[in-house]
Amino acid sequence: MSNQKTSDILISEVGPRDRLQSVSTTMPTAHKKQWIRDLAAAGLREIEVGSFVSHKLLPQMADTGEIVAFARTLPGVFVTALAPNLHGAQDAFQAGVQKITIPVSVSEPHSLANVNKTHAQMFEQVRQIIACRNAHYPAVLVEAGLSTVFGCTIQGVVEEDDVLRMAHTMAELGVDEVGLADTVGYATPLQVHRLFTRLKHDLGELAGSAHFHNTRGQGLANVLTALDAGVTTFDASLGGIGGCPYAPGASGNIVTEDLVYLLESMGLRTGVSIEKLLVARETLKQGLPNEPLYGFIPDAGVGKNFHYAGEKA
Amino acid sequence: MSNQKTSDILISEVGPRDRLQSVSTTMPTAHKKQWIRDLAAAGLREIEVGSFVSHKLLPQMADTGEIVAFARTLPGVFVTALAPNLHGAQDAFQAGVQKITIPVSVSEPHSLANVNKTHAQMFEQVRQIIACRNAHYPAVLVEAGLSTVFGCTIQGVVEEDDVLRMAHTMAELGVDEVGLADTVGYATPLQVHRLFTRLKHDLGELAGSAHFHNTRGQGLANVLTALDAGVTTFDASLGGIGGCPYAPGASGNIVTEDLVYLLESMGLRTGVSIEKLLVARETLKQGLPNEPLYGFIPDAGVGKNFHYAGEKA
Repeated sequence: MSNQKTSDILISEVGPRDRLQSVSTTMPTAHKKQWIRDLAAAGLREIEVGSFVSHKLLPQMADTGEIVAFARTLPGVFVTALAPNLHGAQDAFQAGVQKITIPVSVSEPHSLANVNKTHAQMFEQVRQIIACRNAHYPAVLVEAGLSTVFGCTIQGVVEEDDVLRMAHTMAELGVDEVGLADTVGYATPLQVHRLFTRLKHDLGELAGSAHFHNTRGQGLANVLTALDAGVTTFDASLGGIGGCPYAPGASGNIVTEDLVYLLESMGLRTGVSIEKLLVARETLKQGLPNEPLYGFIPDAGVGKNFHYAGEKA
Repeated sequence: MSNQKTSDILISEVGPRDRLQSVSTTMPTAHKKQWIRDLAAAGLREIEVGSFVSHKLLPQMADTGEIVAFARTLPGVFVTALAPNLHGAQDAFQAGVQKITIPVSVSEPHSLANVNKTHAQMFEQVRQIIACRNAHYPAVLVEAGLSTVFGCTIQGVVEEDDVLRMAHTMAELGVDEVGLADTVGYATPLQVHRLFTRLKHDLGELAGSAHFHNTRGQGLANVLTALDAGVTTFDASLGGIGGCPYAPGASGNIVTEDLVYLLESMGLRTGVSIEKLLVARETLKQGLPNEPLYGFIPDAGVGKNFHYAGEKA
């Protein structure tokens, strides 16, 4: 769904939201803008630019409204943001986002720990957000980003039937997309294939993106089986930033640079330039000098054999 | 082929050969033995313990004969070594290896750079090695490890037809297995699937192992498509050591720890204990204190959801 598709696969860049949410450093707004400008220049067509959350809890997200307004000036970029509740969603709508993602935990203990809400309370938030969108911002898309669907550090195993039940509930509440997120890096390839196959079977066009972390090094293997199950939108972050700061040694999201290499090498067009991603990576490095960046392609290069999908070998 | 199979997938641990070949540090023989003892204790059933090459060129391999003799005392371990020519193969046979791997480059420029031999000269070596084996060491297996099959830093693209032609030549010369190696980390999933499918189709039971490097982060994705093409033996190294010291930022082989996690999570038994691999990793770290180790599982842990194939969830 979402934006215009001039590519086979849509990469949704979530670094500006996923990492800055978990890092205590506040990146200056001007630097954030340069980073996002570089991401857009590299060909990324969907960017999750921030979260609409309490400024007290996450001061590093206090400028999200300004960042949204800036990102909307970049041609060809579809601007999304995370909003965990009605209040955040209203702020996001007013700021001019084109899509919001509501994080909904399938694990109720995680929901309570993360957003202090039971499932019933989350459903009520989603219902109100959809009502607000329908009444005042009919052009804005609403995605439910189901989290902890591959397992939860608090609850442990999360039943696949519970994931599907939650997906149906979200569809009934009127969301436009249901994505599946591996919040804690537990996903493994066969599980990914099973869950996305069921999601697609049950929800059809509402089946949305895959959000993987590379915590256990299985990220790109999971992408392969998700592709096989029909997924066409993948969240990723430049330099693999993002992820839980409370899991020592756990790295963040799958790395945009390595993902683009994988997809293009498989003949799948992403519209993204690896060379220009490396420019954005330099900007990011300057903005977060004390944070580790991940990925193999930035060090190893694409190699002599690589060519973009559709280009001649 | 090769050893007794009490598992679905055979992991052939190549760290003692692949890394020590490329690192200038000489690990004391006693420390090497402890490392190999730990690898065996973790359940690894095939270990490539060294190379039989000129002691002048690679002094760190001068003790390979002693290491082979030691490894043969470990119950349940199938002991293999690399031998690039007849002289090395004779030494390996005499030392008591159970299998040798002859590296044969499909890229002739790489063959000249690596072992200073044309294809014709390599074929002659293989012919003589097989004759020696048949005459004096009939129980020892001989594998041709085709290198640069997914591309070459010198030649660039390597034609898949050339790989298959080389595989047929090796079969005609009488080797027992033909493995495919991604020497420089160029392999991508669809290419892996195509080549191993053709290898299996053309060579049947002689089709051997997959040797991947994780240089561009595609290692486990390549494993997935190789599995799909019927590969059942994978080379890997503890801590991802190995690989070319002349490619800055390029990491080594696929990481045994992460590979075991992947396979077991897919219901494929490896017979290897991740917990015990971490013991071996500590030994390795002490023996190569200045070398980086790779892998995600050692930092992140297996997580609450993990269970070995065949164990109850």
